[in-house]
Amino acid sequence: MRIGIVGGTGDIGEGMALRLSSTHEVIVGSREAEKAIASCTACEEMLSERGLECSLLGVGNQAAVDAADVVVLALPFKHVAGTLQSLCGFEDKIVITPVNPIERSTYFYYAPPPEGSAAMLVKKLLPESATVCAAFNNIAAKKWKILDEVLDYSVAVCCDDESAKRQVMDLVNGISELKAYDAGPLAAASMVESVTPLLLNVGRLNKLRDAGVRFV
Amino acid sequence: MRIGIVGGTGDIGEGMALRLSSTHEVIVGSREAEKAIASCTACEEMLSERGLECSLLGVGNQAAVDAADVVVLALPFKHVAGTLQSLCGFEDKIVITPVNPIERSTYFYYAPPPEGSAAMLVKKLLPESATVCAAFNNIAAKKWKILDEVLDYSVAVCCDDESAKRQVMDLVNGISELKAYDAGPLAAASMVESVTPLLLNVGRLNKLRDAGVRFV
Repeated sequence: MRIGIVGGTGDIGEGMALRLSSTHEVIVGSREAEKAIASCTACEEMLSERGLECSLLGVGNQAAVDAADVVVLALPFKHVAGTLQSLCGFEDKIVITPVNPIERSTYFYYAPPPEGSAAMLVKKLLPESATVCAAFNNIAAKKWKILDEVLDYSVAVCCDDESAKRQVMDLVNGISELKAYDAGPLAAASMVESVTPLLLNVGRLNKLRDAGVRFV
Repeated sequence: MRIGIVGGTGDIGEGMALRLSSTHEVIVGSREAEKAIASCTACEEMLSERGLECSLLGVGNQAAVDAADVVVLALPFKHVAGTLQSLCGFEDKIVITPVNPIERSTYFYYAPPPEGSAAMLVKKLLPESATVCAAFNNIAAKKWKILDEVLDYSVAVCCDDESAKRQVMDLVNGISELKAYDAGPLAAASMVESVTPLLLNVGRLNKLRDAGVRFV
């Protein structure tokens, strides 16, 4: 599977590149291709120190979309609309959104756009033949990058296409100890996204660093 | 602690009475006092079979409020407003809401009232000196009643008063293997309530019966 990561030099993007590139072809995209290339070099060094081979390519965001079967939008919510409007070529691709619209006052809270969730906004901004899938929403960014951290979490996956959902669930289940759960159609993603600000509050108030979630 | 359960003959109410009455005085309220009395008799039998002593009293909902220090609203969301409007005497009490506003189409979804959450609606309907606390929202009703089931879940607790929050967290931590987590002010309860329809979807779509949640 060729996985393109838009925003691939942020915490989550870099962590996903690290964890996916030994088993998949990963194309890391960035607004500046140089940053993506540097990030890939750093990833390759980290992986080769562990004796792991990997397939990594650093490019611009558009080239990452073009080369991929599956595109991951590893972007902060505030950059989603602008970035998607600057890109094209999503037709017939699976697009994964781990994006959570969160704001902060004295606590973190869920602040979805009028579409109901980041996932539904992404769907609105992409061509109809793209299949949007919400996944990886509730994993703390910092956990991704530390390869020694076992990711032993539940991952809720929302998508309107059963075949695409299954492919993404298989992708999830191949990473560390993650376990994918079907969480319904894309419209149900708001309930998945809103777990993240809850986890940020729980983490901060109970000294549970980078809290995650498990369904039991 | 004297705990009054409004709606104490439903699944959650009866289960909480079972699990709390060996360590606390529990006053089970119902619209019909006879139902509450019958429910208490059944609970007493179940507990005495296990050699457990308990303190249980079946009364009407108003008497349950009057006698309690802590009132639990074990009600379906659709009955919350009507029931609270028919009762009085909540002044200076701690009121726990495990209520989740949920609707169902092809999937379960979070359907909060205009106040933002069931918890904020409860707060609006009660006198200012009552301290509302959201807790126990994400535990499946059926799990409560089966005493052989270990309740090994995380319980997010939201409240604007730190002392009341601590009392409720202590109450939570005294039940089976439940573990209480401070999840912020009452306004943050929407993120806790919305975990429940997510769990209903995850449970139904992945054959995970009566799914619960753990923060890790």
